[in-house]
Amino acid sequence: MTGSVVIVGLGPGAAEMQTPQAAAALAAATDLVGYGPYVDRVAGGPEQVRHSSDNREELDRARHALLLAAAGRRVAVVSSGDAGVFAMASAVFEAIEAGEAAWRALDVQVVPGISAMFAAAARVGAPLGADFCAISLSDNLKPWRVVLARLQAAAAAGFVIALYNPLSNARPWQLGAAFEVLREVLPGSAPVVFATAVSRPEERIDVTTLALAEPARADMRTLVLIGSAATRCIAREGGRAFVYSPRSVA
Amino acid sequence: MTGSVVIVGLGPGAAEMQTPQAAAALAAATDLVGYGPYVDRVAGGPEQVRHSSDNREELDRARHALLLAAAGRRVAVVSSGDAGVFAMASAVFEAIEAGEAAWRALDVQVVPGISAMFAAAARVGAPLGADFCAISLSDNLKPWRVVLARLQAAAAAGFVIALYNPLSNARPWQLGAAFEVLREVLPGSAPVVFATAVSRPEERIDVTTLALAEPARADMRTLVLIGSAATRCIAREGGRAFVYSPRSVA
Repeated sequence: MTGSVVIVGLGPGAAEMQTPQAAAALAAATDLVGYGPYVDRVAGGPEQVRHSSDNREELDRARHALLLAAAGRRVAVVSSGDAGVFAMASAVFEAIEAGEAAWRALDVQVVPGISAMFAAAARVGAPLGADFCAISLSDNLKPWRVVLARLQAAAAAGFVIALYNPLSNARPWQLGAAFEVLREVLPGSAPVVFATAVSRPEERIDVTTLALAEPARADMRTLVLIGSAATRCIAREGGRAFVYSPRSVA
Repeated sequence: MTGSVVIVGLGPGAAEMQTPQAAAALAAATDLVGYGPYVDRVAGGPEQVRHSSDNREELDRARHALLLAAAGRRVAVVSSGDAGVFAMASAVFEAIEAGEAAWRALDVQVVPGISAMFAAAARVGAPLGADFCAISLSDNLKPWRVVLARLQAAAAAGFVIALYNPLSNARPWQLGAAFEVLREVLPGSAPVVFATAVSRPEERIDVTTLALAEPARADMRTLVLIGSAATRCIAREGGRAFVYSPRSVA
């Protein structure tokens, strides 16, 4: 049996932000598995089989990839950003643990990518230059009280916060509720960055403060960065402010 | 004035894990600035000027880069991993904020890279597949009590933890003290990953548990991942266990 699964992080979008390792893994695959828009991002060859699926079917998609690999196919499962960050890698390992014993013997690799939060951070400076955390704001897979407790703990302890999955049509209120909780812990002057579709043609970046942050600015493609009380803005004439978190804590 | 500064994340080491964007930024530079071993990693051209410096001189190095750019040079400041994560980007923006007003008008860009924690995570599965945080264990720039408080808050709230700068010859005891604090909050069965020099010839990865984790296993080049109570190990015959954090929280 020569089947394999490689879970590939495509990076945020631009080809120049995809690693040669990811490109090689994609080129070597017989089958591409993933959420439709991500599979569409892969140039691929005419002999590659594309298995595009809807969003929110991660576990089915993971099992499908493992079945293909068990049948001898070389499968690439594609994710945007980094494959291990709120993406497909966890779903594949969940499926392995719950699935057939033979799947544990499969050749399964993960190829990391430029994550959405680092791409977003790089656009504005170095907001993640001190201790930071990443939280998915989706309550599809965890109770909202857990999300709130983590937001409070992280802000109170001084972490910079990167919010993934800030909202969607099906979850319109979570980001506003998160801002409210954070305003109880952080100063209104804490910088907030909305970074949408970084490195893609529709890229849009806005820097504001926690006091002024409007949840409606975000959509499904937006990464939200929330500074700590120590995070700084450097105003610039005729340009967007730089945002960075100092390395030192007094 | 045409000078510029680009702060480039080289990735963990292997050329295949460096983005084309980073390679292009390095090729376009007239001057390379950074910690010696990182500058040495850049192939560069004969006409490029190399400014290698010692470790722990980040702010001097940042000012030097800004002075060169203000004099019209195209400077690339190099960091391992991602430039914005416990690396040179913060130091450059600190220097800008504290420095000459003219520096704020310089063309300053950040090019993200594959961070050490994502490269380490990819080697063992998807340990960062749930909410996670990154903490520098160095107390050179922040009080140790802040480090302890962040470790406790993160572990108690259920974050997976990535530890940067776990120890060095000058800081031999911090990682052991961190493990002790974490053992008060987390089960001894929580997976711990030591990932040293990922993607370089001397790469070494070990998976153990918090109960058994030995601080002496780490060195300056090691990234330590500490699972939450929910992080899983999948044992495999004849191979290293997979480690992943489920996406769901009950």
